Amino acid sequence: MPIPQYFLDRRTVRRFSDRAVDMSMITEMLGAAAQAPNTGNMQLYSAVVTVSPETIKALAPAHFNQPASVGCAAMVTFCADFNRFEHWCRVSDAAPGYDNFQAFIWAVIDATIFAQQFCTIAEQSGLGCCYLGTTTYNAPQIAGILDLPNRVVPVVTIALGWPDGEAPKCDRLPVDSIVHIEKYKDYSDDDIRDIYSYKESLPENKNFVSENGKETLAQVFTDVRYKKSDNEYFSKLYRDFIGEQGF
Amino acid sequence: MPIPQYFLDRRTVRRFSDRAVDMSMITEMLGAAAQAPNTGNMQLYSAVVTVSPETIKALAPAHFNQPASVGCAAMVTFCADFNRFEHWCRVSDAAPGYDNFQAFIWAVIDATIFAQQFCTIAEQSGLGCCYLGTTTYNAPQIAGILDLPNRVVPVVTIALGWPDGEAPKCDRLPVDSIVHIEKYKDYSDDDIRDIYSYKESLPENKNFVSENGKETLAQVFTDVRYKKSDNEYFSKLYRDFIGEQGF
Repeated sequence: MPIPQYFLDRRTVRRFSDRAVDMSMITEMLGAAAQAPNTGNMQLYSAVVTVSPETIKALAPAHFNQPASVGCAAMVTFCADFNRFEHWCRVSDAAPGYDNFQAFIWAVIDATIFAQQFCTIAEQSGLGCCYLGTTTYNAPQIAGILDLPNRVVPVVTIALGWPDGEAPKCDRLPVDSIVHIEKYKDYSDDDIRDIYSYKESLPENKNFVSENGKETLAQVFTDVRYKKSDNEYFSKLYRDFIGEQGF
Repeated sequence: MPIPQYFLDRRTVRRFSDRAVDMSMITEMLGAAAQAPNTGNMQLYSAVVTVSPETIKALAPAHFNQPASVGCAAMVTFCADFNRFEHWCRVSDAAPGYDNFQAFIWAVIDATIFAQQFCTIAEQSGLGCCYLGTTTYNAPQIAGILDLPNRVVPVVTIALGWPDGEAPKCDRLPVDSIVHIEKYKDYSDDDIRDIYSYKESLPENKNFVSENGKETLAQVFTDVRYKKSDNEYFSKLYRDFIGEQGF
């Protein structure tokens, strides 16, 4: 059976039309997405759906006002959630032991699988989606706006809406560079140059390098987009917040 | 547009026939899955595909020999991977700053989205899949068997094969208990009892309680399946390993 064309052609949408997305449609898609696998059928996640323009406007700065966050019709914030499960334990004379790193990672994995299944369903329904990776940066701010209680940590956000125009298709590394047969085969310098040569050759990436006054595309990542000092600052912020939330 | 029936009907498969799964089919599905979203198009993941019966046999104990790990035709171990990206930085005169918690979490999210897209594609191709959540338990052992280098950490494993018989469909919590409209609405004790009442009423779950000599279903989770002492032991093991791998 051939792989459905959708999977090969899908693209991230960052520009949305003014058309609203019904809350009932989002809820129905989330119900279907919850059929995706999860850890021990504990469903260690919650989805907070925001369609009110005021709350979207309040959340956008936490996502650095990136265009998809400002212009979307809805945001779904997927959270690692042990609040519900532990509440069940407490009303069931059971003593939970989930204030630790394993529990947090299970819930991160559960929330992410749930989010990705939702993304696939939404895209196949004609909606455009954009993950906001900034969710792990400003998690305390997001938690404040969404009233997240103890034991709940935001992990990823999907901004969605009806697409405005056709979104560009992104390049990907050659499949044999991300797949290892039987065991991990480490890369030589020449392997690495080969793997990244197509990406480096793309006109938009060459523009990226010159616009930022850099010599190589990798420097745009290390010096501009994902800088060590930012990464360290937001690592401490997220790690401290996870601790405050009881993991 | 109605939600495709596949998403509503999907189920986890733990029993597989003897029929092999072609490596070329797995690689093609992984190539399609890599079109899924990822952080900043850095593709911070690798998939290690194991089809040799010897290596599957070596990996199964790391997954506590659960039936899906012993009886599968293939295992795909999805790893958080900064090794490839940082190697590219080094050959590009760029100084990486990714030895921190944010970087690790981005890579966990990337690896999980990639895994879930692969799971959906494989299931739609007629294969059966089972996530092995034990990957975060015995990560050092798995890394040893698969020759994972520094900066690479296993996150989830999917055991797959052609289904043997029909797998049962799992219950899920009511959708309005996992979705919050606009803001998080915390649960009352009565809400919690309602939400979990269907799960508690299922004959297989009632058997679970009596077989384990427990009083409530939640106690099966806290006292048998996901015990505090185990969670704490494997939290330290995983956290230490992540540190050793340079995050």
